[in-house]
Amino acid sequence: MNIEKQTIIPPIASQDSPLPYFYYEVIHTSKKSRARVGRIHTPHGIIDTPNFVGVGTNATLKSLDSVMVDNLGLQLMFCNTYHLMLQPGTAVIQAAGGLHKFMNRSMPIITDSGGFQVFSLAYGTVKDELKSSGKKIGNSAVLKINEDGVLFRSYRDGSPILLTPETSIAAQKALGADIIIPFDELPPYHIDPYKLEASLHRTHRWEKRSLDAHIQNKNNQAMYAVIHGGIDPQLRSLSASYLSKLPFDGFAIGGSLGKTKEQMIAMLTSLMPQLPVDKPNHLLGIGDLYSIEASVKLGIDTFDSSHPTRCARHGLVFSSKGSVKIGNTMHKLNFGPIDEKCTCMVCQNYTVAYLHHLLKAKEMTGYTLASIHNIHFMVQLMAAYRTAILNDDI
Amino acid sequence: MNIEKQTIIPPIASQDSPLPYFYYEVIHTSKKSRARVGRIHTPHGIIDTPNFVGVGTNATLKSLDSVMVDNLGLQLMFCNTYHLMLQPGTAVIQAAGGLHKFMNRSMPIITDSGGFQVFSLAYGTVKDELKSSGKKIGNSAVLKINEDGVLFRSYRDGSPILLTPETSIAAQKALGADIIIPFDELPPYHIDPYKLEASLHRTHRWEKRSLDAHIQNKNNQAMYAVIHGGIDPQLRSLSASYLSKLPFDGFAIGGSLGKTKEQMIAMLTSLMPQLPVDKPNHLLGIGDLYSIEASVKLGIDTFDSSHPTRCARHGLVFSSKGSVKIGNTMHKLNFGPIDEKCTCMVCQNYTVAYLHHLLKAKEMTGYTLASIHNIHFMVQLMAAYRTAILNDDI
Repeated sequence: MNIEKQTIIPPIASQDSPLPYFYYEVIHTSKKSRARVGRIHTPHGIIDTPNFVGVGTNATLKSLDSVMVDNLGLQLMFCNTYHLMLQPGTAVIQAAGGLHKFMNRSMPIITDSGGFQVFSLAYGTVKDELKSSGKKIGNSAVLKINEDGVLFRSYRDGSPILLTPETSIAAQKALGADIIIPFDELPPYHIDPYKLEASLHRTHRWEKRSLDAHIQNKNNQAMYAVIHGGIDPQLRSLSASYLSKLPFDGFAIGGSLGKTKEQMIAMLTSLMPQLPVDKPNHLLGIGDLYSIEASVKLGIDTFDSSHPTRCARHGLVFSSKGSVKIGNTMHKLNFGPIDEKCTCMVCQNYTVAYLHHLLKAKEMTGYTLASIHNIHFMVQLMAAYRTAILNDDI
Repeated sequence: MNIEKQTIIPPIASQDSPLPYFYYEVIHTSKKSRARVGRIHTPHGIIDTPNFVGVGTNATLKSLDSVMVDNLGLQLMFCNTYHLMLQPGTAVIQAAGGLHKFMNRSMPIITDSGGFQVFSLAYGTVKDELKSSGKKIGNSAVLKINEDGVLFRSYRDGSPILLTPETSIAAQKALGADIIIPFDELPPYHIDPYKLEASLHRTHRWEKRSLDAHIQNKNNQAMYAVIHGGIDPQLRSLSASYLSKLPFDGFAIGGSLGKTKEQMIAMLTSLMPQLPVDKPNHLLGIGDLYSIEASVKLGIDTFDSSHPTRCARHGLVFSSKGSVKIGNTMHKLNFGPIDEKCTCMVCQNYTVAYLHHLLKAKEMTGYTLASIHNIHFMVQLMAAYRTAILNDDI
């Protein structure tokens, strides 16, 4: 399929058929790569793609309030269903009128299924698990995993919680994000090939059940499938083929993305041409600058990661000349901004020396300012990628 | 002296004698009490009095950046010389062009001498010392206290630091705050009366040395004396009498203010009529709402305290109907603002239920939002006191 020449016709509104609440349009595909500029239309506005998605696990981007995040122009925020189920509970957010109202966010939100966190309880975090050479970490928080779903214990009050495709979707309906994710199994990287295939089929059954539950009450939400298969090209193909036949609104790429960035890029290089070009896609949990550049060229539309805000809290800020380690002694007397070309409020108002001091004094203000700068940087970086694609420069 | 009838003539500028860089004018003294409305003119603008002074120990109000604090209209901020000497060091701040430029604050700043913190190292914090029934806590950080000053060890790198009247003033010259404080001895509450008197005389000698050092290089700064004497009315009188004969620009009330609020109010009731009415005064380290109301009526102009921001971080927010414990379970579904009458950005944008959630989830955003609200509340409260005084209502 020659994607460069394929024309995607966006929906046109008429009196009889108003525009759907969610749709995607491609503005331009680069002549140099699979990179594309598009627009995802959602009930809470447009997401220009490619774009970075900030992670606000607990209904807040760490150290930044929603008014600030809106002002920074972060068009999509990722919130975690698992965390919000446990605190404050989906019933509270539903009573508030949904996540947007609860956190006072005007722009689009995406939630995940909770599966990632629950399986991290069972196998350890992705990072721990990669380091463990396959030794199952085991955690008494997970009580049972079977075809129905996962039974686990709340870390807050010890109560047992059953997460299934149906309960995950019910939770995500209560949260009311613009984009939701079906419940999937997250197999560990270190898994026997036959078990990986079995897990993939279970994930497919769970995703289908999730989609069925979603379709019964669309609630102005879109659902992205999650393509699994680890780093096995054939399983990834199988997953793309199966899921793209179902009426999902977009495609997320999840599961194990490999041990190294090179493994991930190889996997994406093989997988991306197999995805429908008329639907948006999302790469789950990736946000480092190297991977973003490589993935944009392969046609990825959106990325979510807590990387920029986590870096900020550890004193690593991004700049057009590379990253700056704020805590480095050389910055004690650096009375310039982080980045002379940066237009963010931090670079307009504060010096690196002041940020260095706040970091050394362990002042929260320092985490906030560094986070503002890094999110602003990501928003501007993605806008620059869109311009480059429109100019066929990448 | 009948203060109600005394007229204070503010300076008038002319071509030959421009306005001084620091002066105080009384606008109105209440007919009902000693409460008064005034204006302190400083190189960084006016401080309307009575007013609350936010504490930004490490050159930042905890969790709020200077642009936000300026926007909140907090006209005076208190920074701690002791902390800033150790981190980032006064040389760094001097190289930045002073504290205002370092932290990007446009409005006035007051710094203390460092004495309070150093003597807290020796005797424990005021709170600990009050609880200890006079047992000296002792801390290897303080190496020597003699007539010259205090030798202590930096908690950062273990290096010995000598704090004397002269070194404290040199540090405060480097910081460049609008108002500075002479070096004093902070005697513990549990002290023999004869030792308290000896301490008072040493404090007077140290304050005189501080003033002499200040006068050699005024640097567009004002210096407030610190009146000591613990809760002994005669010693407070002696201190007020001695210090008001020296050319200080204002008067701070320091030392032990008593074990209870009633002891402090009794002390102020006796002391306040002995202070010159044509100079501004400041009550050190007091910021609870009860004490502020009582002290305003006794003629106190400014108060500094970390109380509102510390309360905020513990989930206690102020409102026109009394304080609200955000973390209380009853607020889980409270979808109203903290205070319906409040005009702050938090009450305009966020519900108590959301703040409750952020607190439970230990999200920094919650500390920031609660701090914004409490500082806004204090700024508005003090404006309301000024109106009440102008109307002779209190």
